[in-house]
Amino acid sequence: MNNFIFHNPTKLIFGKGTIATLTTEIPKERRVLVTFGGGSVKNNGVYDQVKEALKEHTYFEFWGIEPNPTIETLRKAIKLGKEKSCDFVLAVGGGSVADGSKLIASGILYDGEPWDIVIKREYSAEKSLPLACVLTLPATGSEMNRGAVISKKETNEKFAFYSNTPLFSILDPQTTYTLPDFQISCGLADTFVHVIEQYLTTPGQSPLMDRWAEGILKTIVEIAPRIIDDRTNYDDMATFMLSATMALNGFISMGVTQDWATHMIGHELTALHGLTHAHTLAIILPGTMWVMRSEKGDKMIQYGKRVFGVDIQDRDEAIVEIIRRTEDFFLMLGFKIKLSENGVTIKTIDEIERRFTERNYKLGENRSVTPAVAREILERVF
Amino acid sequence: MNNFIFHNPTKLIFGKGTIATLTTEIPKERRVLVTFGGGSVKNNGVYDQVKEALKEHTYFEFWGIEPNPTIETLRKAIKLGKEKSCDFVLAVGGGSVADGSKLIASGILYDGEPWDIVIKREYSAEKSLPLACVLTLPATGSEMNRGAVISKKETNEKFAFYSNTPLFSILDPQTTYTLPDFQISCGLADTFVHVIEQYLTTPGQSPLMDRWAEGILKTIVEIAPRIIDDRTNYDDMATFMLSATMALNGFISMGVTQDWATHMIGHELTALHGLTHAHTLAIILPGTMWVMRSEKGDKMIQYGKRVFGVDIQDRDEAIVEIIRRTEDFFLMLGFKIKLSENGVTIKTIDEIERRFTERNYKLGENRSVTPAVAREILERVF
Repeated sequence: MNNFIFHNPTKLIFGKGTIATLTTEIPKERRVLVTFGGGSVKNNGVYDQVKEALKEHTYFEFWGIEPNPTIETLRKAIKLGKEKSCDFVLAVGGGSVADGSKLIASGILYDGEPWDIVIKREYSAEKSLPLACVLTLPATGSEMNRGAVISKKETNEKFAFYSNTPLFSILDPQTTYTLPDFQISCGLADTFVHVIEQYLTTPGQSPLMDRWAEGILKTIVEIAPRIIDDRTNYDDMATFMLSATMALNGFISMGVTQDWATHMIGHELTALHGLTHAHTLAIILPGTMWVMRSEKGDKMIQYGKRVFGVDIQDRDEAIVEIIRRTEDFFLMLGFKIKLSENGVTIKTIDEIERRFTERNYKLGENRSVTPAVAREILERVF
Repeated sequence: MNNFIFHNPTKLIFGKGTIATLTTEIPKERRVLVTFGGGSVKNNGVYDQVKEALKEHTYFEFWGIEPNPTIETLRKAIKLGKEKSCDFVLAVGGGSVADGSKLIASGILYDGEPWDIVIKREYSAEKSLPLACVLTLPATGSEMNRGAVISKKETNEKFAFYSNTPLFSILDPQTTYTLPDFQISCGLADTFVHVIEQYLTTPGQSPLMDRWAEGILKTIVEIAPRIIDDRTNYDDMATFMLSATMALNGFISMGVTQDWATHMIGHELTALHGLTHAHTLAIILPGTMWVMRSEKGDKMIQYGKRVFGVDIQDRDEAIVEIIRRTEDFFLMLGFKIKLSENGVTIKTIDEIERRFTERNYKLGENRSVTPAVAREILERVF
């Protein structure tokens, strides 16, 4: 096991009716910038609950943080927060609103151009406002981690940066009952691949972390078909919501290496083609598994056996079956998992290889996913 | 799933050579009270590492916190801390040193009799000094939770109280290489039963928490025989240490009910007979399982199947086998698991029933372990 530091101070407030706790969780003297996405919270009752909880607070609303939040939009929110002297940010929505709000929380206290916080790593823990979340879409885990991904429309770029973890996050599974099919599928796929990135690496690093990762994967595989049919079963949606948060809050990555090549390739597909993040993961992961099957073979066998019950003696046959089961999971969620089915051309593969070469990327847990290997992965799922 | 609040801000610093991080983790201006147990840290190099790391700090040493720390000893530490105007407490040792130091951290800022902090719940988060731990014995989980158990020799009493979680805890698995056999066995049993108390309750509350609990149990069952043979395998000891911390830091109890009847009965055996905490758990748990088998039957079947691979069709036979496997685990650790083998008489059972009746205890996840049921459990393992 590798040395590690684990520290996740986010307070998780989970369950029915918990949005009302905003009243006491945010000190009354705070001036709150409340950030939203496109407006779905006005139809599912979340907006009304937030308003009711904050009726004695001073707050200002910012609407319109889009999926894959852009610096162009976030600049406007930062401007509003500065104008109104806000000293607390409350994100109400899914992972994009949470991610965007992490930049807003830093940007309000930053004098320069906010994009520099992302690309020049200008973030500072002390120079960020406290941030809290009301989560309405289980997927990214942003509600309980330091990460955020911000896009720049102008240059079709998408980069991660690290911020403070939210002070607290409120997760009421009832808020997910009205999510559209596609967002449910994306949330399930996103959760699944987050776990895979921290798990499908070198075997034998930590038997406990392995079992916790497999525990999330098995749970997601078990509940996904039921959720696709019916998203109003409280216990299933609560399990989904809890799994998504636990998939990317550091709980399953203690002392083990991590991959993230699939994510890095996927980010480029989003930046260049606007494909939804989770959809890119569903496309790329089977390619990563195929191309990296000699490096990842032993762990893939363990994954196949423990998560899907694949028990085939012949190693090559087992690996083919395990990749097929993984693809089947994404197909069951309704994704088209080939690049060519999604309007991506060979020109895009050329561009991604070019960008990775320019950035001198060596991705994956062993730094063996060179730009040429990334190309091979993309061609495999073309 | 039940509503819950999860909040565990302890920073975990885990791995080889991490004691040296004390130098930077404790601010230089702090006046540190460093608390120790009986002195084993002088033989295994831990004391030297702590001294080296704190050589530029102002610190005062308090020695002699005993297993099942007593208020009588802790009063002396509190007195020293007050005299020296300490404003930081560093516990160096196992769970007893950590537990005792939680009381010390509160007691130094408390004007009254420290025992009141325990029995009158006089603890306050604000009126407690920051506490950190260097853990040398994986067992209680105290290094990453709010709980502590304090004994009073004068009256043979033992009570739990809740404090702040440690600010940070340093876990270097190499510090466990020199632990005596009995402490290793106690640590493994303690970890195992901590998980059981949060898991062996009503089935179907959270499939994810179930799998995480089972993940710890399976891991402990897997590594225990190897550790009994050889405690110098780094990866096994690291897995043990990580499992013990994860067993009682809230990570496996989100949204589910908890039992703790075995612990409550066990505490009395320690208070009245001085039996080591983990040893009392190894004695009592099989009794709890037997007496509560109708209430806990469904979850016991799941536990038996997933942890021990017990796959017997007949329910009664399966339950007998599952209890036998649990007993075998404790026997393999070297415990005598009958009360009568450990010098406990029927008079003790009378006294425990009397105390529980006086306190009007209704224990267990369904409040169904009345004083009479506790007696039945004790008689079962007599």
